[in-house]
Amino acid sequence: MITLDLTLPDCRYPIHIGRGLLDRAGELMAPVLPQPRALIVTNDVVAPLYLARLEASLAAAGIQTRAVVLPDGESHKDWQTLNLIFDALIDMRAERKTTLVALGGGVVGDMTGFAAACWQRGAPFVQVPTTLLAQVDSSVGGKTAINHPAGKNMIGAFWQPRLVLADIALLDSLPPRELSAGLAEVFKYGLIGDAGFFDWCEAQAAALMARDADALIHAVRRSCEMKADIVGQDEKEQGVRALLNLGHTFGHAIEAGLGFGVWLHGEAVAAGMLLAADLAAQLGRQSAGELDRIEALLAAVQLPVRAPDLGLDAWLSLMGHDKKVDGGHLRFVVPDGIGRASVESDVDADALARVLGGRFIAR
Amino acid sequence: MITLDLTLPDCRYPIHIGRGLLDRAGELMAPVLPQPRALIVTNDVVAPLYLARLEASLAAAGIQTRAVVLPDGESHKDWQTLNLIFDALIDMRAERKTTLVALGGGVVGDMTGFAAACWQRGAPFVQVPTTLLAQVDSSVGGKTAINHPAGKNMIGAFWQPRLVLADIALLDSLPPRELSAGLAEVFKYGLIGDAGFFDWCEAQAAALMARDADALIHAVRRSCEMKADIVGQDEKEQGVRALLNLGHTFGHAIEAGLGFGVWLHGEAVAAGMLLAADLAAQLGRQSAGELDRIEALLAAVQLPVRAPDLGLDAWLSLMGHDKKVDGGHLRFVVPDGIGRASVESDVDADALARVLGGRFIAR
Repeated sequence: MITLDLTLPDCRYPIHIGRGLLDRAGELMAPVLPQPRALIVTNDVVAPLYLARLEASLAAAGIQTRAVVLPDGESHKDWQTLNLIFDALIDMRAERKTTLVALGGGVVGDMTGFAAACWQRGAPFVQVPTTLLAQVDSSVGGKTAINHPAGKNMIGAFWQPRLVLADIALLDSLPPRELSAGLAEVFKYGLIGDAGFFDWCEAQAAALMARDADALIHAVRRSCEMKADIVGQDEKEQGVRALLNLGHTFGHAIEAGLGFGVWLHGEAVAAGMLLAADLAAQLGRQSAGELDRIEALLAAVQLPVRAPDLGLDAWLSLMGHDKKVDGGHLRFVVPDGIGRASVESDVDADALARVLGGRFIAR
Repeated sequence: MITLDLTLPDCRYPIHIGRGLLDRAGELMAPVLPQPRALIVTNDVVAPLYLARLEASLAAAGIQTRAVVLPDGESHKDWQTLNLIFDALIDMRAERKTTLVALGGGVVGDMTGFAAACWQRGAPFVQVPTTLLAQVDSSVGGKTAINHPAGKNMIGAFWQPRLVLADIALLDSLPPRELSAGLAEVFKYGLIGDAGFFDWCEAQAAALMARDADALIHAVRRSCEMKADIVGQDEKEQGVRALLNLGHTFGHAIEAGLGFGVWLHGEAVAAGMLLAADLAAQLGRQSAGELDRIEALLAAVQLPVRAPDLGLDAWLSLMGHDKKVDGGHLRFVVPDGIGRASVESDVDADALARVLGGRFIAR
């Protein structure tokens, strides 16, 4: 087991990474819970696979649990589903110190974290991510939210977990499409901050797709290290944390434009990263060769390399609702070659239009 | 105009108190807004009285505004109504730096503050309280929330405003019942921490009921001073802030038991304070003479001095759902005479039963 620490001004928490951690969840969690009671929040896909084992591990550590099983999918990341968590908390007479445990992917983690942020104005929570995307990205750093029909993650909170427990063994059951979606966020870390890691991803793409344990552990570890480092510098996204949004302005537009859940988040981010790289090329910051490398790596792990053609007006409208907007100007994170990125806060409309009518849009 | 400062580890904000401040709102707010755009949140009772003046004042200061008018009343402090605020923010293409302005009483302030806490994970907000209760209590200190059908303020956040603007002139239009409800919270400050102020309240009860400007300004000022002092010591209610909940465990049970909105919050707190004082008497901490003084002062301003008879089981069930519970034990704030209070975290069930079947319950 590898343990990383995420250190913030007001708190510090461990990220445990390894194989077989689910059955040690009780022992690992017990020291950080203010009260030996927890509500496990999961979904109807994950529950049959892992809920009983998590319950058994917590029970063995003397932690009383209840569970609530949500419908699976991004399309349920809304008020109605969030209220199922609150109803369960009411029903179990949960207190302010009762811990919420997220057992699932990014949607379960985001909703459980947001419910914890709001429950009696702030309850503890723990992340047990079951997808690669959640293990490398969404479970770490305390961004929690639900969607508004008009925009992804518009309603949420910054609320940090007490602990993150990333069991690589849980990825064995992950559908191939979700494995690929998680790799999009892994590659993102290489693109924005570590050219050597991007090289490693290129070399290990086949091993990652084959779920080689050593490769996955390294990918999760390096991703979490970079995320913890960036979030530690900038919890509330006043500066450098924005770089983690590479591909996300385009990606959120794809998700909202097609309807939440049609594309997986990681798929939309993959296509969005290519559009951001193309924008960087339009601005003279990225070479054609670098663009080709990114496209090739995404294609090698079965990620989409063409965004859907939403139409220019729809793109702009959907991105205008995106929260990464400042004073009416569209902000984009763009790569500066491979291994570096920056925020461009007043993007030229013509360059943007060229990207949105360019080679990375499906025809 | 009197200006108090509320100082917290991470922020500091002014509380302006005076007559005629509404028409100076733009000039007072402009320096604290990160962007000259705001959504005014109000309700259908307050809007016809004050919305146009607030809009005019903000416009004169160069602040663009939109307004959303919610249905009035505690029974609307729920998800459905909260979503009206989010829909308005989406509709105006609000950004993370757009300010929400609460123009109304405690319900509007709590909901606007909670919406601001959640909008894009945290937007600025300003309180323009229009009721005495909101001016002396709910607008100051950053507690925001909505109700769950099974419990008041179960879902919320600690989120501080950028500024509080308490215009005493707005109290001219307040219905008598709401004036009395606000005085319950004013008296609470005397009870928990300032015997001299409680004496002053007794002497000035008639002047307060007659809406004497000097008396009201002193009452709001002293209440806000005490609240700012307590919140400054303990923003997240880990300790001393709990004293502000005097009467609230009983009071919330009354509100939930009768259905939110049947009794005003301040009315329920008044009856709840008497029950807490009776509990203190049962525990030997309050004399019969002190109990009589509290009852007489509440009665002098037309506040209820008998709680509804919910029945013992309903009382206990409703209070068990109250969030001021710790490890299954019922916690109560109880006065120690007049001018001092403490938290009693393991209340004797027999003493509690005597109170709930005692002289301050309606027969």
